[in-house]
Amino acid sequence: MDISAVNALTYEEFVELFGNVVEKSPIISAAIWSHRPFKDLTDIEAHITEFIHSLSDSGKEGLLRCHPDLAGRDLQSGTLTRESREEQSQAGMTALDSAEILLMHRLNSEYKERFGFPFIICARLNNKADIVRRLSERLKNDRAAERELAIEEVKKISSLRLHNIVLSGIQTKL
Amino acid sequence: MDISAVNALTYEEFVELFGNVVEKSPIISAAIWSHRPFKDLTDIEAHITEFIHSLSDSGKEGLLRCHPDLAGRDLQSGTLTRESREEQSQAGMTALDSAEILLMHRLNSEYKERFGFPFIICARLNNKADIVRRLSERLKNDRAAERELAIEEVKKISSLRLHNIVLSGIQTKL
Repeated sequence: MDISAVNALTYEEFVELFGNVVEKSPIISAAIWSHRPFKDLTDIEAHITEFIHSLSDSGKEGLLRCHPDLAGRDLQSGTLTRESREEQSQAGMTALDSAEILLMHRLNSEYKERFGFPFIICARLNNKADIVRRLSERLKNDRAAERELAIEEVKKISSLRLHNIVLSGIQTKL
Repeated sequence: MDISAVNALTYEEFVELFGNVVEKSPIISAAIWSHRPFKDLTDIEAHITEFIHSLSDSGKEGLLRCHPDLAGRDLQSGTLTRESREEQSQAGMTALDSAEILLMHRLNSEYKERFGFPFIICARLNNKADIVRRLSERLKNDRAAERELAIEEVKKISSLRLHNIVLSGIQTKL
């Protein structure tokens, strides 16, 4: 799929294809459609970043709260989005033993209690050991620093999802 | 459900309950959770309005593009959100004859072609005849005026959804 094919999409097709590039936030892809024609993928990414950075602190926290826990309730109950399921699987979150599940549950709960949003890390760029280590470390940050760190992770996740869709050219559904 | 019960919800419970108060935009309820404790429903509504008004023009258009057509593809294929289905049903959109469906399809297409977002009207406050009349009239507006009118309709829809959830006290799902 090349950029001219992307630029030819109606907003309905665009949102169907890219609506979950930022987890459960189709408003973002729907908004950036206004900026067509895009020069390239970097241009699309720049518009996504611009949207995210334009959010207030509570807006950024809202974006974070649209993300599931790693190895959490949505994974257990099969209600993850397709993209999240694939990412969590790749990072080994679907193959934890019961002690590891309990550890993740404890750390996730502690993190959410402290910050009021879930722990987010780009699962495709981290393995199980990295995730546990970073989660434990990041629990020591303050809320503002952690909000910004988490937003940077959202941008990495979004970039990989975007490239994956365009390079594969396969139509995906929310 | 009184406001103290709303204020006691975790962000996960809050988003589960209010996530679709603005159609397919859980980021909004997830964001305003940061502003707890709420004084009352009017306070919650004010935060939703503040979020919507803080969006850029393209962000507002993104919000509009998260809405389905009235009597459109999602209604025919059964993929409307529960809230939209109930609202469209109440306005008579689920009981159109084939000529009326074709008329709505033609007007919706013309509207989307002209503005790049779908026609939005608070279906609970309008009957079938109102909807056709307003859709035909609003096709004559310019894009900026129509964007603002549509955002005002989103706020009416959101207000009714919010009151419906809190007054009924029944747990709803996205």
